[in-house]
Amino acid sequence: MPNRLSTQLGPWSSRPGPLYRRLADALRAAIDRGEIEAGARLPPERVLARQLAVSRTTVVQAYDVLRGDDWLESRQGSGTWVRRPPVSGGSLAEWAPPGAPVLMKRDSIVAGLTAREGTIDLTCACLPPLRGLVESSLEGSAAALAEATREHGYSVLGLASLRSAIARHLASRGLPTTEGQVLVTSGAQQAIALVGALFLRRNDVALVESPTFLGALDALGTTGASLTALPVGADGVRLDVLREAVRQRPARLIYLTPTFHNPTGGIVPEGARREIARLAADAHVPLVEDESLVDIPLDDEPVPPAIAALAPKAPVVSIGSMSKLCWGGLRIGWVRAPEPVVTRLASLKVAADLGSSMLSQVVAVHLLERADEVRRLRRAQIVAQRDAMAAELERRLPDWSWALPAGGLSMWARLPHGDASEFAQVAQRHGVSLLPGPSVSPDGGHPRHLRLVYVHEPAVIVEAVKRLAQAWEA
Amino acid sequence: MPNRLSTQLGPWSSRPGPLYRRLADALRAAIDRGEIEAGARLPPERVLARQLAVSRTTVVQAYDVLRGDDWLESRQGSGTWVRRPPVSGGSLAEWAPPGAPVLMKRDSIVAGLTAREGTIDLTCACLPPLRGLVESSLEGSAAALAEATREHGYSVLGLASLRSAIARHLASRGLPTTEGQVLVTSGAQQAIALVGALFLRRNDVALVESPTFLGALDALGTTGASLTALPVGADGVRLDVLREAVRQRPARLIYLTPTFHNPTGGIVPEGARREIARLAADAHVPLVEDESLVDIPLDDEPVPPAIAALAPKAPVVSIGSMSKLCWGGLRIGWVRAPEPVVTRLASLKVAADLGSSMLSQVVAVHLLERADEVRRLRRAQIVAQRDAMAAELERRLPDWSWALPAGGLSMWARLPHGDASEFAQVAQRHGVSLLPGPSVSPDGGHPRHLRLVYVHEPAVIVEAVKRLAQAWEA
Repeated sequence: MPNRLSTQLGPWSSRPGPLYRRLADALRAAIDRGEIEAGARLPPERVLARQLAVSRTTVVQAYDVLRGDDWLESRQGSGTWVRRPPVSGGSLAEWAPPGAPVLMKRDSIVAGLTAREGTIDLTCACLPPLRGLVESSLEGSAAALAEATREHGYSVLGLASLRSAIARHLASRGLPTTEGQVLVTSGAQQAIALVGALFLRRNDVALVESPTFLGALDALGTTGASLTALPVGADGVRLDVLREAVRQRPARLIYLTPTFHNPTGGIVPEGARREIARLAADAHVPLVEDESLVDIPLDDEPVPPAIAALAPKAPVVSIGSMSKLCWGGLRIGWVRAPEPVVTRLASLKVAADLGSSMLSQVVAVHLLERADEVRRLRRAQIVAQRDAMAAELERRLPDWSWALPAGGLSMWARLPHGDASEFAQVAQRHGVSLLPGPSVSPDGGHPRHLRLVYVHEPAVIVEAVKRLAQAWEA
Repeated sequence: MPNRLSTQLGPWSSRPGPLYRRLADALRAAIDRGEIEAGARLPPERVLARQLAVSRTTVVQAYDVLRGDDWLESRQGSGTWVRRPPVSGGSLAEWAPPGAPVLMKRDSIVAGLTAREGTIDLTCACLPPLRGLVESSLEGSAAALAEATREHGYSVLGLASLRSAIARHLASRGLPTTEGQVLVTSGAQQAIALVGALFLRRNDVALVESPTFLGALDALGTTGASLTALPVGADGVRLDVLREAVRQRPARLIYLTPTFHNPTGGIVPEGARREIARLAADAHVPLVEDESLVDIPLDDEPVPPAIAALAPKAPVVSIGSMSKLCWGGLRIGWVRAPEPVVTRLASLKVAADLGSSMLSQVVAVHLLERADEVRRLRRAQIVAQRDAMAAELERRLPDWSWALPAGGLSMWARLPHGDASEFAQVAQRHGVSLLPGPSVSPDGGHPRHLRLVYVHEPAVIVEAVKRLAQAWEA
């Protein structure tokens, strides 16, 4: 706890100005970032003084400054705690308290998901549905839609026929599932957000891969949990580090993308999957396996079974989505978990949105029936796109390094030198938006990496890489 | 702060057993309810002893018990704080920390929204769409859908054509709105949840009507804010109480349903609307006006303008929905707020679900074009249902009291004697599910009231009231 506060303050004493003022500024900044919450009690002056190796007077003066500005409140005999400063003037948007997210990462995704004229978007691992797929599935769902529109349209757990279609879909991947184990969500994004809201509280530790899916950082980050980075190798998450991390810190959640890791495309082999399940079970930590990309294999190697299938008794929550195979515009995903977990997640979904679009759910039932056909067509399409990107990168940017992914929608390229975040800015000016390594890493690492998605038609990919080569030259 | 802890402990000392054990039990219960959060620092022993008027030894022993059970942690010189007890055994569902919601209210709604064979559901103020409406709008949206399916389908702020259709819809209600002021949400439920997540933190005060919309209690409750009840009269929220409440406590949000109050149907008159806006502006408190029911007027009286229209400079966030007029199965609602607020809410929506169903959004554009026609047909349908319920109640339950609502989908009936929560249980056994007053009141009040929705065909309503009369006799 004392160490946590020192960490939250950062390297405060190395800044200029009188010591007590620097301490006050550092405390204010930590409160403003939401790292020290409103209502939190601060250590007594003499205790903090000892922890920070400063005089008691320095801490007393720092607390005084912050009390004067209404950031702290003290009462004789009961200590000093963080106030919410009263709102005064300013605009409505500024009235949101400290800790409310306007994170750069999220802003970049808001920006990335709203089209920019002329710019090729390589941030979003999402692509249009196969031509005519949604329309023909709508036609094929006419009877089901007529039935659905005879009802009020709310289904917190999900439309029964969709829940059983998802259960069958998972069974066909080798993961036997009952309808009761399925919660329909608005995409995998909501699935991650609900699971995070159930298991995580402020300052809890969650273990997540670095790099990982940006949306998971957003969703798990809003719980106020601290996200600890697990480095990733060619075979997905590094087992040695995971083993040590679980041993060292009482983590409350492990979030992994073991099948076609996002963004590297790596696959955790079967043996490692079994050990991960054992680690989670032994440490009593819920393990979230995000299989959003499982339907996008790009070669003929068989995909290892889901962790939940390998270790049916381990505390595993599986997440899936129709966004990659079919269409993100449906906003249909799912959680597969023990029934009591599904029930608790449903309570959270009631508060969040009362259920997902019935229109999308009806169409999703029909689409899942066509999953095999769609997977075949999708694969041909995406392999062509991946290969176009690989060929162009080899031709135009031979000094970048990357591995050809066996599945998924993105490549993880390493620059031979320079800073990826700066390069992303230059690329933006050359008409390509992309995510640099630090923005998809919970620890802000990977300063030399870029995440490149191959979701466009080959001609657009060729043009995008051409622009990247121009930006790289610049 | 000291007073808060005493309040959280409740009447602990009146229970049996040694004093230190009773104190330990009360502290544990408060932690378990999530009222004292993991990480919260407890007062030093001598301070708490003074606050509770017990000996220091009693507190020392109580803390000792809780430390032994891993509920508390102390370190020399830095005090005592609440630990998250380590997970040990049990099932995955039980691993969610204290404070995670499995609230009775939410459970009842989960139950209410999943059909029960043979039971008439009078809990959910939602009804099927007009026959053929969704199908014909889908047909009418074919071109827009073809266009939408050429894209990846994510739109955090909402489909541009829907945002401008909503802006036009609001302008036609007398509330001039730009596209930039509109955020599309997954129903009004998500709108309330996002606004709550932006402005409220744990232990903040939010002022809400009592009774109110159950979904608002769920959504605002998950923030950990404390919901303070504003009583409601025939003209909606009672102004005298609101005035006093805003003066007394630093509230962080006011949530109201001024137009066809849910569940009483009351309407706040124009003069009172102006004063509410002034109160919110003067106190710098965001005012949320939920207009989800504005499209369900049931008589010819003109509806007063939206508060946001009467006081354009007041800090007002308006919420609307297509669920009542068209279909809840679309899950399309909106927030209308200043642009910077919309941007911050969009950051939260990215983390929550990355955007709403594109299929629903495309259809919603078309449906909003037909709003006038739909409103006319809907009104005829709902007036007939309301009148059927009123006539049957008069005939079969003449000693219940209620007022005929001028709009909305529910009546608020008062039993002449007895307990509404008990009656709801009896009614359930007679094949009617309904919400008793306490479950829609933030303060658990209204023990004699029932919320009755008139969303079924008249024949079903007649049968429902017949069953209620049988239950009342029993």
